Amino acid sequence: MDRLECLFCGKRYPLDVFRSFCPICHEPMVVSSTPRRRAFSLDRALSIEKYQAFLPLAKVDRGLSLGEGETPLVPLERIRRKYRLPPVYAKNETVNPTQSFKDRGTAVAVQKAVALGIKRIGTVSTGNMAVSTAAYGAKAGLSTIVLLKEDTPRDKALAAGIYGPVLVKVRGDYGSLFSASREIGRKHGIYFMNSVDPLRIEGYKVTGYEIFQQLRPRVPRYLFVPVSSGGHLIGLMRAFLDLKEEGLAAEMPVFVGVQAKGCSPLARAFAQGRDRYSRFSRPKTIAHAISNPSPPGGNLVLKLVREYAGMIMAVTENEILAAERELAELEGIFADPASATVLAALIRLSKKKKLNLREEVVLVVTGSGLKTMESLGRQDIPLHRTSLSRLEKTLESLST
Amino acid sequence: MDRLECLFCGKRYPLDVFRSFCPICHEPMVVSSTPRRRAFSLDRALSIEKYQAFLPLAKVDRGLSLGEGETPLVPLERIRRKYRLPPVYAKNETVNPTQSFKDRGTAVAVQKAVALGIKRIGTVSTGNMAVSTAAYGAKAGLSTIVLLKEDTPRDKALAAGIYGPVLVKVRGDYGSLFSASREIGRKHGIYFMNSVDPLRIEGYKVTGYEIFQQLRPRVPRYLFVPVSSGGHLIGLMRAFLDLKEEGLAAEMPVFVGVQAKGCSPLARAFAQGRDRYSRFSRPKTIAHAISNPSPPGGNLVLKLVREYAGMIMAVTENEILAAERELAELEGIFADPASATVLAALIRLSKKKKLNLREEVVLVVTGSGLKTMESLGRQDIPLHRTSLSRLEKTLESLST
Repeated sequence: MDRLECLFCGKRYPLDVFRSFCPICHEPMVVSSTPRRRAFSLDRALSIEKYQAFLPLAKVDRGLSLGEGETPLVPLERIRRKYRLPPVYAKNETVNPTQSFKDRGTAVAVQKAVALGIKRIGTVSTGNMAVSTAAYGAKAGLSTIVLLKEDTPRDKALAAGIYGPVLVKVRGDYGSLFSASREIGRKHGIYFMNSVDPLRIEGYKVTGYEIFQQLRPRVPRYLFVPVSSGGHLIGLMRAFLDLKEEGLAAEMPVFVGVQAKGCSPLARAFAQGRDRYSRFSRPKTIAHAISNPSPPGGNLVLKLVREYAGMIMAVTENEILAAERELAELEGIFADPASATVLAALIRLSKKKKLNLREEVVLVVTGSGLKTMESLGRQDIPLHRTSLSRLEKTLESLST
Repeated sequence: MDRLECLFCGKRYPLDVFRSFCPICHEPMVVSSTPRRRAFSLDRALSIEKYQAFLPLAKVDRGLSLGEGETPLVPLERIRRKYRLPPVYAKNETVNPTQSFKDRGTAVAVQKAVALGIKRIGTVSTGNMAVSTAAYGAKAGLSTIVLLKEDTPRDKALAAGIYGPVLVKVRGDYGSLFSASREIGRKHGIYFMNSVDPLRIEGYKVTGYEIFQQLRPRVPRYLFVPVSSGGHLIGLMRAFLDLKEEGLAAEMPVFVGVQAKGCSPLARAFAQGRDRYSRFSRPKTIAHAISNPSPPGGNLVLKLVREYAGMIMAVTENEILAAERELAELEGIFADPASATVLAALIRLSKKKKLNLREEVVLVVTGSGLKTMESLGRQDIPLHRTSLSRLEKTLESLST
């Protein structure tokens, strides 16, 4: 039977989509299953069907899926050579139906919502999660509420709005909005599938199983992932814990959570050896998707990373911009600045620490650069001009 | 052995990436293979490996792939019910590494370029093809030239520029630029993989095989595809011809090529029963990705569509906008206006002609709405505002 569990106090509660935080510890809970033999069903069509035995879904309704997952694990051969690295792969989550990893979590949460007969869902987000929830809510025919920060740019709002949700900009503190949404949701039967929702976290586990399977099958030595609310890292870690529990894998990867220095409450707490983070004041970074000054899963991330010998790092704006550029120029992947942090962190780490050739590295690329076109203003991209009659000469002069 | 063939005069030539048009007929040529037993290798990792026996590639270099293809075939159940249609599926090509179907063609053309030892590639494009070619060129470490129209908006240029190609805006007629690029390419050994390049067209075949396979396996009755240069439709049609030739399928789908009325040279020629189209003057449509007044594959499309009992339709701007909205609001897919034409055409057709329940329909959705955010200005998307303290009341009043 699937229950909710607080990993801090160990208490368990019945699975309830309107309750995602421990009433005692106030930390996010995770889904914990009664031990049973679980196996992959790789002949099934959808990613959540292939790994359904590991998910709290009694059945999968194919009509609710947008075909999320099964994203490529791309070898980054040119980056490996340039920095003399062990084999490096990008798990390219931008190749999802709404171009971010959020679809993994939304897919599972929406399955559960429909199975429970819930008619209204919602989310609090300024970016990828708003778009993902609006898209899956539309597909399922659910009434979907998207709450945005007051200063959300119009085009970000429209990218979610095209799917027809109830779209509301809310004045006031973002953290309070997060709590208020859950209270209103509980009262009115609206399932707010926010960042650290336990079902959403279950969806992120699938990415972990896929990485293992795509390495035919093997656990990578390092797994780098951008950290905002913490939900993604928690889900990925639980995937590999599942594999260990089932005897499919002997070890865990070393998890490297990455933040932008301009908003790095968890990297700071980790460096200071603290169990709890404190709110990061005056966040300022180009990596908007991970600019979260008080991440709701932050303390759980700190706990898990310490338990399993991982680490949390922060990288600078210049490192992020350079990594965004290199990922595109050397490997053909246009990631958002939040995703570029993982390459920046790997390069930094490789300079400090000799990685040996068997230490395979996976970088989780979480979102597409197409959604952060404004950040290209910070990149110096040469654009030449010529006429048709001078074209041949121009190309000769520019030729490399 | 793989050769180039003109489907108008039947002449064959050795495969040569610098020659893509018949020297006699001036029409685009296609790759034609000596008949041999061909089969799928569905246990392979990459899409072009699975269908390699049908492609002119002696080997596949995995290091050149971005993980293109294997895109979902999503049942459009809510649209089916609303319009009382037979089973309808979207082949969602926006879930490709650079968010459009172009990656299929670029992937194959770049494999060939590297196999032949070519060091420089290029393309003439204003949108999806520029981005795709720049990305794959970067991945392969090839020197890549992207030629843009003079009036290409800056953000479209940057979306290709981030991958580090030689990016040049060229003053002058776009059709002449297309020809000039091929001449310069032949002279200087730059492989310009433009819209109707024979290798590019081979890549589009893979989408056809996947559709067949995803229908477990079956040929759909109708296949709707947006038509610009014509390369995509030609490739898809050749895929099903291959399947027939191999005895894997008994019939061909009915191909429905769709254009925007504001730039519909082929739909006009088709309606007039003509073999050749004439240039469309003063094109004006929101569907920029298919706004091609003199499509280089146009006459070949007209010939093939007639030979295999297909059709070419044109849809209005209002139909396109409504279809873009419905695809998002009912099915959670945010397509660009060019892709929305196929749903508009299906709705139109279903009103004129009773489709029976066994007549399965596949709509090929070719590009992401994220690349055409400017078109959302034409959609009326309500955005509400409230404060934290009034949030509950606001949601009650908006609740559906």
